[in-house]
Amino acid sequence: MPDFIQPRTLKGFRDYPPRLMIPREEMLDTARGVFRSYGFAPIDTPALEYAEILCGKAGEESEKLIYRFVDHGGREVALRFDLTVPFARFVAQHIGQLGTPFKRYHMGPVWRGENTGHGRYREFWQSDFDTIGSTANAADIEIALVIHDLLRALGFERFTIRINNRLLLNGLLEELGLALKATEVLRALDKLAKIGRDNVADEMIQTSGATTAQADRILTLAEVSGSNDQILERLERDFGHNTRAADGLARLHELITVCVQAGVAQEHLRLDLAIARGLDYYTGTIFETFLSDMPAIGSVCSGGRYDNLAGLYTKQHLPGVGASLGVDRLLAAMEEMKLLPATATAAPVLLVQFSADRMGNYQGTARRLRAEGLGVEVYPEAKKLAQQLQYAERRGFLVALIAGPDEFAHKVWKVKDLTSRVEEVVAESELASALRALLSRIEARDHAEARTRDGHGS
Amino acid sequence: MPDFIQPRTLKGFRDYPPRLMIPREEMLDTARGVFRSYGFAPIDTPALEYAEILCGKAGEESEKLIYRFVDHGGREVALRFDLTVPFARFVAQHIGQLGTPFKRYHMGPVWRGENTGHGRYREFWQSDFDTIGSTANAADIEIALVIHDLLRALGFERFTIRINNRLLLNGLLEELGLALKATEVLRALDKLAKIGRDNVADEMIQTSGATTAQADRILTLAEVSGSNDQILERLERDFGHNTRAADGLARLHELITVCVQAGVAQEHLRLDLAIARGLDYYTGTIFETFLSDMPAIGSVCSGGRYDNLAGLYTKQHLPGVGASLGVDRLLAAMEEMKLLPATATAAPVLLVQFSADRMGNYQGTARRLRAEGLGVEVYPEAKKLAQQLQYAERRGFLVALIAGPDEFAHKVWKVKDLTSRVEEVVAESELASALRALLSRIEARDHAEARTRDGHGS
Repeated sequence: MPDFIQPRTLKGFRDYPPRLMIPREEMLDTARGVFRSYGFAPIDTPALEYAEILCGKAGEESEKLIYRFVDHGGREVALRFDLTVPFARFVAQHIGQLGTPFKRYHMGPVWRGENTGHGRYREFWQSDFDTIGSTANAADIEIALVIHDLLRALGFERFTIRINNRLLLNGLLEELGLALKATEVLRALDKLAKIGRDNVADEMIQTSGATTAQADRILTLAEVSGSNDQILERLERDFGHNTRAADGLARLHELITVCVQAGVAQEHLRLDLAIARGLDYYTGTIFETFLSDMPAIGSVCSGGRYDNLAGLYTKQHLPGVGASLGVDRLLAAMEEMKLLPATATAAPVLLVQFSADRMGNYQGTARRLRAEGLGVEVYPEAKKLAQQLQYAERRGFLVALIAGPDEFAHKVWKVKDLTSRVEEVVAESELASALRALLSRIEARDHAEARTRDGHGS
Repeated sequence: MPDFIQPRTLKGFRDYPPRLMIPREEMLDTARGVFRSYGFAPIDTPALEYAEILCGKAGEESEKLIYRFVDHGGREVALRFDLTVPFARFVAQHIGQLGTPFKRYHMGPVWRGENTGHGRYREFWQSDFDTIGSTANAADIEIALVIHDLLRALGFERFTIRINNRLLLNGLLEELGLALKATEVLRALDKLAKIGRDNVADEMIQTSGATTAQADRILTLAEVSGSNDQILERLERDFGHNTRAADGLARLHELITVCVQAGVAQEHLRLDLAIARGLDYYTGTIFETFLSDMPAIGSVCSGGRYDNLAGLYTKQHLPGVGASLGVDRLLAAMEEMKLLPATATAAPVLLVQFSADRMGNYQGTARRLRAEGLGVEVYPEAKKLAQQLQYAERRGFLVALIAGPDEFAHKVWKVKDLTSRVEEVVAESELASALRALLSRIEARDHAEARTRDGHGS
């Protein structure tokens, strides 16, 4: 007797069955549509690269997270752990042909051997979009618009894009003579929500050599609150004299103004001087995006402006601005909150096989319906009707099509709404339009029910 | 001065810039639409698995092709080298929840450390689709229909799906007492096109112990030619008495008949008893697909029926039928034959930035057009008009939108057709419909030109 190999995935890795993969495809497809509508063009890079290239800027801590090995040709290689480093290498290599400004999106899996659990996996999809080769604030503004349109297109209505500009803090630190201690100050500031004002001030004083008064000024900047207008007014009063900070402020002001002029509701944009996003990478605008109904999962779309994308690989100075959508993080959260549809079929209609000798008719009708844009699966065996309908319901089909000798004799089809179990008889010539109408009715009813369930109904 | 890391990809790996990635996304998107319309549902599996699982059925020769290493946790892991082995593992693990029949498609990269060159890369995308859990010929027929509809949807009109059924040869070998020598016979037969009839006969006699008369009978089966009807008639006469062969014949007969009834042109289907596709895996129907204008690239979509998909991982017997579209092979061929569009933009319209203080108007108009389904990129800097138009032409934008103070005063836009350089002035309120009409005209003209260029024009 054979010894079976136990079928299992590696720790921290997971399969995507249709129930999860259908929503992931929809999410990626929607994101692609938004990116493209703004003129971002797709690129792809290899999963595997020279370790030297991928690890160039990773600290020792990150090294441990990287899947790294020697290939058959003796090369040190590694799996990409994000889409930013490969993009920097890609740009350094190809910018001559590509020209600037260059706007790209990149969707794909990345690998990190880190601790798993609670929606964290060792393989997960990211979706990055960036404009490089321009320092214009128009590019920053556009990233904010894309984040907004992306979240709306994905079906979210309650979310906030938090926006900061690193120039403000940098301006203040210069003024305080602490410009060289920016990393220490940011590292302390990053803990504000977690450990509170006093502890942050203590750490800042210890690690950066700031005085108590200086720490207080930095914290006052980070904690400034109110409406966007109030914050801008306050900051212009307190920091308008500082050239660098004033530049950051002007960019923030323009960003908010143009987004609102372009049709974005103020409620989706919030100035937040406390967000920092990594220590050294970002140099200007910073974005983080939170879902009002799932704040615990953290930012679902983050990014910002940087001065020099590809400095490790080329002397060409490439400034840019961009953000990254956490595809699998968002999906895992939606799964946990039971926001994903329960269907496991990509086609809404099941055509029942009544008699095997009618296969030509079945596939002929199915192909005509497919040509009209309707998804139709033909059951492969002439099993009992009840068994085929059970299969249809378990998979989440919405409609069944049935035809036996009587129906063929009269050129009609039985059309069964599997959600209400109501059956109607439709002429073959009317089948496509009848199905379209029925599917619209089912969808409209589902939406109405979802609204009522969520308490948004009238 | 910094030492730069040389930006480069590994040997056998390549980047996909927009010019290549836009067609790949279109190809995958089209394929997804066809698969879904037949009720195939998407799945995904990890790129990285236990080496034991991926290498279980690979011979020593394949072992060398596999990227394999030990991870930080001491596990022997490997990158998948196809989508079939992970699917077998997936099915063995989940079939209890999934139920049968189960129809899935799976698109993704696979990795093989093999020799490179001429369109062969060490990382390439495949796109597999299979129905498992049914032995019904309806499932085989459907795979043929999907291959047909896929090629048509991808824009190919001249292609042939070659179809065989392993039962015919197996029946004959049984009759000849050579059933246990099937592997040797197939290995020789596989070389028919390359080394010719006599050499194949010699090898067969040497390796399988067949007599000259037996080798002749096998070769006569493989070489039977004519129209599909002629082949079927001839085979029914010569092999109808052999139960196993007759079963294969009946399935081939039904496959051709139903495909034609369902609307497929006979010219796309050709019975070809010489195709073998691997030695042991397939047990029934076999498919290979050749483009009439690019025969040299080999089969672009191949597959067949197998008895037992997941025998290494489970005692559950899982028969199935499926095929695999060679996404990157097709793309590399189209690239080589200059069949890919020259565009590097995902949006057809560039909105020129005339004055930076109008950013709110520019982005507002662009967002309204995007909401109407039009892709619009806004140039990020208020550079000279000529410079922006040069950018637009180099990237392959079709239309430019221009508005300065005069246009804003009169609520109009200059709409410039970049393919003909003709400019018109359009009221802001008419802009979306004017753009749609202009883009349709450009597309229609491009199609007409392509037809004339290919000699299909009137």
